[in-house]
Amino acid sequence: MTYFRKNIEDLDGYVPGFQPSGDDVVKLNTNENPYPPSPQAVGAIRNFDSNALRRYPQPLGDSFCKSAADVVDVEPGNILCTNGGDDLLTICFRCFCDENNAAAYAGPTYSLYTVLAKLQNCATIEIPYPDDYSLPIDELAESGATMTIVCNPNAPSGSFVQPAEIKKLADRLKSKSVLLIDEAYADFAETNCVQLIKECDNVIILRSMSKGYSLAGLRFGYAIASEKLIAGMRKVKDSYNVDAISIATATAAIWDQGYFRENVKKIKAERTRMTATLREMQLEVMDSQSNFVLAKCTTVDASKVYDELAAQNIYVRYFNLPGLSDKLRITIGTKEQNNKLIEALKKIVSCDK
Amino acid sequence: MTYFRKNIEDLDGYVPGFQPSGDDVVKLNTNENPYPPSPQAVGAIRNFDSNALRRYPQPLGDSFCKSAADVVDVEPGNILCTNGGDDLLTICFRCFCDENNAAAYAGPTYSLYTVLAKLQNCATIEIPYPDDYSLPIDELAESGATMTIVCNPNAPSGSFVQPAEIKKLADRLKSKSVLLIDEAYADFAETNCVQLIKECDNVIILRSMSKGYSLAGLRFGYAIASEKLIAGMRKVKDSYNVDAISIATATAAIWDQGYFRENVKKIKAERTRMTATLREMQLEVMDSQSNFVLAKCTTVDASKVYDELAAQNIYVRYFNLPGLSDKLRITIGTKEQNNKLIEALKKIVSCDK
Repeated sequence: MTYFRKNIEDLDGYVPGFQPSGDDVVKLNTNENPYPPSPQAVGAIRNFDSNALRRYPQPLGDSFCKSAADVVDVEPGNILCTNGGDDLLTICFRCFCDENNAAAYAGPTYSLYTVLAKLQNCATIEIPYPDDYSLPIDELAESGATMTIVCNPNAPSGSFVQPAEIKKLADRLKSKSVLLIDEAYADFAETNCVQLIKECDNVIILRSMSKGYSLAGLRFGYAIASEKLIAGMRKVKDSYNVDAISIATATAAIWDQGYFRENVKKIKAERTRMTATLREMQLEVMDSQSNFVLAKCTTVDASKVYDELAAQNIYVRYFNLPGLSDKLRITIGTKEQNNKLIEALKKIVSCDK
Repeated sequence: MTYFRKNIEDLDGYVPGFQPSGDDVVKLNTNENPYPPSPQAVGAIRNFDSNALRRYPQPLGDSFCKSAADVVDVEPGNILCTNGGDDLLTICFRCFCDENNAAAYAGPTYSLYTVLAKLQNCATIEIPYPDDYSLPIDELAESGATMTIVCNPNAPSGSFVQPAEIKKLADRLKSKSVLLIDEAYADFAETNCVQLIKECDNVIILRSMSKGYSLAGLRFGYAIASEKLIAGMRKVKDSYNVDAISIATATAAIWDQGYFRENVKKIKAERTRMTATLREMQLEVMDSQSNFVLAKCTTVDASKVYDELAAQNIYVRYFNLPGLSDKLRITIGTKEQNNKLIEALKKIVSCDK
């Protein structure tokens, strides 16, 4: 006997990345930023008027909308605050998909999409990425889905599709499907798709404060889209989906662009170094525009490498999934963390030769 | 042309209570606690290790589960942390209701239930409360719904149904429907239904930190239910639905039972005084077990009273809905706030005689 709907009862549920604790752990498994949040954000927490917690927060997070709109050059009415990027994904599935309205995306990609589709009881159409991870525009444009998702930069590949290519897809989907562009990692890319919301009435951009702004623990993300799409999504979000401290902290963080850019620059430099070093070690590494790299283990078994690293308190991400089971996704850490990984990896690779 | 599902496109959306600002405002319209949060909770914010925000929070809010379980005398596995009580309501609708599985409740009650049902595209069966607000057990037991909600104490009436009555309903719903007991206001009642989760496999209790713990701005609520029901609901919640600062703050707040009880005691004393005073002014006031009273205006038009109070920066809640349009819902404030309301109300009532 179950009280749950069948699709819920049958579901395994999403398994978040392992969260090891301890000071000696090198944690490169969940794409967190290795640097602390902006001192401005920390100040917002320290100086928060705790008496304000008695009252309900701003239902729409107006302060954040204003600052974010300024930073990304849109209007506040083009912004929707969400409880992390995942909240926005849930909102979109509930807005656009159901038993008769499918979701489409190219894969492998963020595994949560499939879980959310099952929760919403909608069909999914997963088009395989070609080896070069270019966008399968024709297949996505003709899928018949009412929501199409492109994760860009894509996870776990780190690959990037140029906005001009994505615009082609958006145009072909016009009046048939919204195009949700998941830019959770766009802070680390050379460019992004924000301008498309002014040209395409079906584009929704997802942004996260978790990665570029070092605020994974705060749960703050946002949508950028036409006012009409934002107005519809506001009806579906929880009445007060972002809390008062988070609004204040995220607002301060996004306003501190200087600190943000400095950290992103450091991570990009380490990404370049890590990519070159891993390639020297005979791992196949795609060019990444994100804060992680996907490395194919050519001489040793990827799951074995994962285990041996974990035994040394170094955590990366291993997905036992088609197309990924010979690879490791490695978050870019600080120089020191990356060096520890490289040293450990060198020994594992050389032992197995 | 719309990209939204029809049920979303047709929806008006929930309208949160008006949030006036300014130091001279007497805000008795959204059932917020007039006292600040626990100094322990404030300390948790002040001392929060901001560097921890880089990392994802505990997916299940383990620290809070442990403390809450201790306070309400259940096991941590009987607790589900949610982003406010509203998040739990959304989770429940998504777990138990859809096009073929309706929700039932007695009304008038919390108006969000109807909105969430429309979002989930499920039918609703609203059984009218009798004048004494006793529970219509027979009608609810036979409604055919797969989720039955009892708000207890009920909003906006403040009325309370004894746990023994609710158990009768739970027993009759067994193997047919979950029974969600919305105890958002239970902190102000003489007793509650927590013990029912040990006797009935279909009972879910909703609790909120917004009211009794003065943390409406923090967004923190929780479910209490059997481990089996909690496990199913965990599959539906967002992966990280509560953030790291909220977990720490709510944990500190619920642990400070001394401060909590003291505030609740003050509010109950003022509730007794307000009920008596309003009755002296010819308003009909039901006995309330919540932090508000519902007052029927017998000599003047309720909407007019609302307007005249608002003109003096005193805000109460007026619902232009069947059964409520002649009443005002008044949150219990501090003694000073309540006195300001009484003075203003006296003048309005006497002028109109």
